[in-house]
Amino acid sequence: MSKTKERILDTALQLFNDNGTRTISTNHIADACSMSPGNLYYHFKNKEQIICGLFERMIGSWDEDKNKTLEEIPPEKILDLQLEKTFHFAWQYRFIHRELAALLDRDDKLKELCNHVLQRRIFEIEGMFKGFIDSGIVKPLDEKTIKFLAHTSLYFGLFWQPYLEVIGGEPNEENVQKGVQMIKQLIEPYLV
Amino acid sequence: MSKTKERILDTALQLFNDNGTRTISTNHIADACSMSPGNLYYHFKNKEQIICGLFERMIGSWDEDKNKTLEEIPPEKILDLQLEKTFHFAWQYRFIHRELAALLDRDDKLKELCNHVLQRRIFEIEGMFKGFIDSGIVKPLDEKTIKFLAHTSLYFGLFWQPYLEVIGGEPNEENVQKGVQMIKQLIEPYLV
Repeated sequence: MSKTKERILDTALQLFNDNGTRTISTNHIADACSMSPGNLYYHFKNKEQIICGLFERMIGSWDEDKNKTLEEIPPEKILDLQLEKTFHFAWQYRFIHRELAALLDRDDKLKELCNHVLQRRIFEIEGMFKGFIDSGIVKPLDEKTIKFLAHTSLYFGLFWQPYLEVIGGEPNEENVQKGVQMIKQLIEPYLV
Repeated sequence: MSKTKERILDTALQLFNDNGTRTISTNHIADACSMSPGNLYYHFKNKEQIICGLFERMIGSWDEDKNKTLEEIPPEKILDLQLEKTFHFAWQYRFIHRELAALLDRDDKLKELCNHVLQRRIFEIEGMFKGFIDSGIVKPLDEKTIKFLAHTSLYFGLFWQPYLEVIGGEPNEENVQKGVQMIKQLIEPYLV
């Protein structure tokens, strides 16, 4: 990806995180990048392409990070590392987490991409729990319970920020972190 | 509430459940009620008022049902009854559950109402768990765990349908029911 494209994505991410996608236009993004709307249009045809670009970058960084780290980590450290990473992405790309359902509702291509990635993610989380069982960190569990833990962990990673908003909690860094800590508490009764 | 108002709400609920709120206008609703847009306008000034009316009706029915039933029920039946009720409302008012974050984002009055109701709901669910502990159905738990169970139960009741959509699951009756069953599995390790 070109440096200019990266700069546009960085700027858009900050504007979307601070204001939501609804009130931010491509003109606002071009302005904040100190470039003409025509120049921005050369890189991204519309706001949807920018949102999709950020989505793909988030997934790419997650996977890159995954390949890099998980191999030499002792099993008892993996959970904390995964929670830290979940929080890092939830906060860095917070507009995506806050608006997820509405973003997918407006863009079928994005929805398909998200469905695909999350099916893979569920499979990976189930694998992580099976690894914990094999390492003797988690008690032996049946398939149904492993599926329950995988779905609930993913669910906490995805919808905690909209949940905070509907119960009237501030969607600040500390409260977003609490959502990730819920996953730790979820697993607690299943630890050896 | 007048019979005509009730009929408009019933019709709108079905249209919103089947199509989402985005593509349904007050004209569609008037058409489906076989009334003129002017006549509908006499009862509801815009789509937001209809959505808010449905929201208030949902909350009213939940509370009415609560006052009626919980008093003479043996404690060991309360959980199943509450889960059944949660499912009933999640399915009957499924457009609200599917679009919750976006609906509140568009309407500050609705957001405030929702914040208020859900704060009360958390308090009630905590009370329910304390009741289970007192009746010896659930093991003694500290405040933190009670809060965890209350928030997670509410969270499953609220965001399961958007979750289904982002992982590519059909938001049909059977899958919505599964979300409610997740609450049962959540509680399982804490039962006596």
